[in-house]
Amino acid sequence: MLNKDTRILIVGLGLMGGSYAKALKRQGYVVGAITRSQETIDYALANGLIDSGSTVPSQEAVGSYDLVVFALYPHVFLQWIADYQKFIKPGALLTDVTGVKGSVVYRVQEMLRPDLEFVAAHPMAGREVYGVRNADCGIFKGANYIVTPTKTNTEDAIRKVELLGETLGFARISRLSPERHDEMIGFLSQLTHCIAVALMTCKDVEHMSAYTGDSFRDLTRIAKINDEMWSELFLLNRDELLSQIDMFTGKMDELRAAIADGDTETLRELMRLSSRRRTFFDK
Amino acid sequence: MLNKDTRILIVGLGLMGGSYAKALKRQGYVVGAITRSQETIDYALANGLIDSGSTVPSQEAVGSYDLVVFALYPHVFLQWIADYQKFIKPGALLTDVTGVKGSVVYRVQEMLRPDLEFVAAHPMAGREVYGVRNADCGIFKGANYIVTPTKTNTEDAIRKVELLGETLGFARISRLSPERHDEMIGFLSQLTHCIAVALMTCKDVEHMSAYTGDSFRDLTRIAKINDEMWSELFLLNRDELLSQIDMFTGKMDELRAAIADGDTETLRELMRLSSRRRTFFDK
Repeated sequence: MLNKDTRILIVGLGLMGGSYAKALKRQGYVVGAITRSQETIDYALANGLIDSGSTVPSQEAVGSYDLVVFALYPHVFLQWIADYQKFIKPGALLTDVTGVKGSVVYRVQEMLRPDLEFVAAHPMAGREVYGVRNADCGIFKGANYIVTPTKTNTEDAIRKVELLGETLGFARISRLSPERHDEMIGFLSQLTHCIAVALMTCKDVEHMSAYTGDSFRDLTRIAKINDEMWSELFLLNRDELLSQIDMFTGKMDELRAAIADGDTETLRELMRLSSRRRTFFDK
Repeated sequence: MLNKDTRILIVGLGLMGGSYAKALKRQGYVVGAITRSQETIDYALANGLIDSGSTVPSQEAVGSYDLVVFALYPHVFLQWIADYQKFIKPGALLTDVTGVKGSVVYRVQEMLRPDLEFVAAHPMAGREVYGVRNADCGIFKGANYIVTPTKTNTEDAIRKVELLGETLGFARISRLSPERHDEMIGFLSQLTHCIAVALMTCKDVEHMSAYTGDSFRDLTRIAKINDEMWSELFLLNRDELLSQIDMFTGKMDELRAAIADGDTETLRELMRLSSRRRTFFDK
């Protein structure tokens, strides 16, 4: 667990920032917030998610926190660091929840004041709803948390960010390089969102709900997607995502050929491999 | 509800046949079974899923039932009709649970004795486990049930098969032609299973479970797949499935091009359409 005296600032009180705040307040930490809308702050204060909050970054609102968590869109995050890092307490530790790493982590670290340290992390949790009103620290339970340190990071700071993951309740905490993270997430998360969107848009399906089973529902749960956030994340991981898409569509072509040829043995072999591998992902 | 005096025979006591038996016995119907293994019958008798059962079709085992439900692999179903329809009670009604229709329904109807009637149906429910020991009539709750009559069917018989769906507890009962059913199922069910298998086999993923979120788990739940049954179902619906695969991969190509071109507006438009459409499938 993080030291109980750690004062934590959440920048960006959306679903994820709000869920962080909720989990940390519950554990007794002092939690502050910077977010765009006063209404969000009022809600978070009234519901005990934060101790204080402000819509404007300032020395007063930012300067007393030991750990700052950024839960912003990537471009907003980068701009925030450029504009407001001057307010951050000397020696503070910074982390984030951003879904891509290679195109963000190094840029933040390059522009950061030398007395601050940024260790990036990616909580592999989420929901298809948005905003602080849906904050839910239950989403961390049983979930994975990936820390993506670079060579410039200190072991002490990396360890603290891992402790944050433990404190939030994540089940498995891993370390990956930013590049390996982006490859992994390009496949496990971005490709799956592409598939869900393609499946939902390739055909006029609005009259089909009377005929569907659970498989179609499961494959398209994530087709409800925040278009602003995900289009940004896709493009920030473009090359990796393109190669993951190509790998997947290549395998679809192989499956298609086996069906076209009536090649039962190839089909069954792919299905058996698929069944075996899926057991690794049972929760 | 089906008339309470209806005596029902289930042919094939697997997960689906067993779940039918369980639901019908609970409602007080007399349920018999024909299935390959004596162990299955012993289990079903001991657990109150059936009133009687036999591993061998005979006049005695088959001849007293008013409604016969076939829960067999398609080729086994066709062979069963050819070999044993002579035992079925004159005037009896036949139905099934087969996942493809065009390549099955007409062939059964063509070879059927003139005093029997077959109305095909497809329960859109299932689980990733097999066998009578996993029989679970809870899978019908909230699920869809599709009846696929042909021109030779009588309204009275179609209505009875719909009543069977109601009796089992299905939430929505629809009628579709066999052809329309196969198109729908090619898209909603077979294509989704192809996607799950391709996703699970396109990359060595066994070490990835520490990094995954729920989206990958959701998209691959059905990657645990009965290779014998599904390869048969795919090939019995080959042309339709191929055209559904082509439609989907065409849309993946479009999405890929938008990502490659950095075309945020096209990406966001696809995501917004996808999000809107997905709301039609909320359960």
